[in-house]
Amino acid sequence: MKEKIAVGVDLGGTTIKMAFVDESGNMIEKWHIPTDITDGGRNIANHIGASIKDKLKDTDLEISSIEGIGIGAPGFINLENGFIYKAVNLGWENYPLKDDLEGITGLPVFVDNDANIAALGEMWKGAGNQAANLICITLGTGIGGGIILDGEILHGANGMAGEIGHITSITSGGAPCNCGKTGCLETIASATGIARIATEGLSDHPESALHQRLDGKERLTAEDVFISAADGDEWSNEVIRTICHHLGLAIANLSNGLNPSKIVIGGGVSKAGDQLLKPLKEVFAQFALPRVYEATDFAIASLGNDAGVVGAAKLLFNQTSKK
Amino acid sequence: MKEKIAVGVDLGGTTIKMAFVDESGNMIEKWHIPTDITDGGRNIANHIGASIKDKLKDTDLEISSIEGIGIGAPGFINLENGFIYKAVNLGWENYPLKDDLEGITGLPVFVDNDANIAALGEMWKGAGNQAANLICITLGTGIGGGIILDGEILHGANGMAGEIGHITSITSGGAPCNCGKTGCLETIASATGIARIATEGLSDHPESALHQRLDGKERLTAEDVFISAADGDEWSNEVIRTICHHLGLAIANLSNGLNPSKIVIGGGVSKAGDQLLKPLKEVFAQFALPRVYEATDFAIASLGNDAGVVGAAKLLFNQTSKK
Repeated sequence: MKEKIAVGVDLGGTTIKMAFVDESGNMIEKWHIPTDITDGGRNIANHIGASIKDKLKDTDLEISSIEGIGIGAPGFINLENGFIYKAVNLGWENYPLKDDLEGITGLPVFVDNDANIAALGEMWKGAGNQAANLICITLGTGIGGGIILDGEILHGANGMAGEIGHITSITSGGAPCNCGKTGCLETIASATGIARIATEGLSDHPESALHQRLDGKERLTAEDVFISAADGDEWSNEVIRTICHHLGLAIANLSNGLNPSKIVIGGGVSKAGDQLLKPLKEVFAQFALPRVYEATDFAIASLGNDAGVVGAAKLLFNQTSKK
Repeated sequence: MKEKIAVGVDLGGTTIKMAFVDESGNMIEKWHIPTDITDGGRNIANHIGASIKDKLKDTDLEISSIEGIGIGAPGFINLENGFIYKAVNLGWENYPLKDDLEGITGLPVFVDNDANIAALGEMWKGAGNQAANLICITLGTGIGGGIILDGEILHGANGMAGEIGHITSITSGGAPCNCGKTGCLETIASATGIARIATEGLSDHPESALHQRLDGKERLTAEDVFISAADGDEWSNEVIRTICHHLGLAIANLSNGLNPSKIVIGGGVSKAGDQLLKPLKEVFAQFALPRVYEATDFAIASLGNDAGVVGAAKLLFNQTSKK
């Protein structure tokens, strides 16, 4: 039997990552092209199609072995017809991505939200270790979330499931969030949130090592906080305790509802590793039901930048196996 | 084609409710028998079997039209083999309910947790109105919860999904909960929790109408609080605002993760109707993402004591349709 191959596409505002991935999740070839956002992003689908064609020529693969294309895209997406309501970074508004790319390539195309696709990738071939019930949280500039239940992405009533970054952590007087609310988890436990909290407290902690790190720099980063904390700086450690309190409480409360087997933490902040996981698990143990706690493993995401293309390929295989 | 009938069984510590239910969800016959918890509950399965046999004789139904038996049971259940690890109210410990009842009746038997079954019933024929994504919260002596996603009960990694009553609402200094934690939603928004909070504040509100209601009674109930609040008692209204703050926040945060289309509130406390729903929805609007808020309807459970038998019948039909 001929091996089936999916094209996984991770569509970002700067770069389009792509890969040929087999049914076992092996990346046969991976590459990327710049994202052309001129003309309201109208060239993007053509570029993807042309790049796949070129790459097929460069490899031993035939077009007949390609099952189709899975895409993780930013923005609000109609998951049934692959229609992008709005993707600000790409210039798209009311754009029929699935139809357009199917017309260009002659291949079936399936589209989902990029945070969901990353969760699917980590579940399939990454730290999720094929856990059927998994919550993936990406701590970057913002907070992305994806929930996998019984091996499938949870979408919810109108595609908003997994918006873990907008769980309200501070009910009164919290920092404003891009979503329009205040006190969201994203304002606390994202890289941006961590740097903000650390910076706001600096004037009360003039003696802290973190204050000295700022010297001559324009601003602190989340990485500065973890470095100073590792060196024993008390204020940096207090910031990490605060972050982990809110993040651990949010995960525990969601887990009391969902009873996942795996929590995967990704994004730039997750590079802190055990400095983050250890206090986080302590908070989780305090607020999760004992039997929920027992069932749940924590792990740092392991696929890095490949999570998107691997997850997008899995999306394609999941969808075509249903036909 | 012959009509298919399920026996729905709602197994409680005092009463076993049963019904013949057709595939459209109509109850052809419903009845109940007392629960015999003597001898460690060893007669229960025999009683259920005998009662079904007797009732078939009383009706026009033939045994051949019965597809099988669905049961909602209390306690910790192994959902794959219908094995009850422990059901304190029934005296069961490590009891093979499914195997036993299949042996007695010769019918296929499927077992699930009673709170999940009530949610399934409300989704199918009650206030859930067949919403594919639904959260059902029962505010009674404790708080029960059931989550339906894509029309199926969510069980999670080890059957603990839906434990909404044990979401932590007060992170420090909360009241002790039966689960061993403190500050659980159940300690606040259950009938017991509402009465406790109202009573604890009475000494600070000696002028309140609620204080006068207590006169001569042994203790206040949640119903007292809603009655006094309707009469304009300020302390009672403050208690309801507190309850709704914590309940609304918990539901909003869970909904930011799950993006449900329907929230169904049941149990004795839900008899308060709009007195509960109106402030609850205001808190939900504050803490849910705007697009999550738009997608979510609230409703008071409508099946009352029938939710269990109807949901149990649905469990049976769902399972047998998969074969």
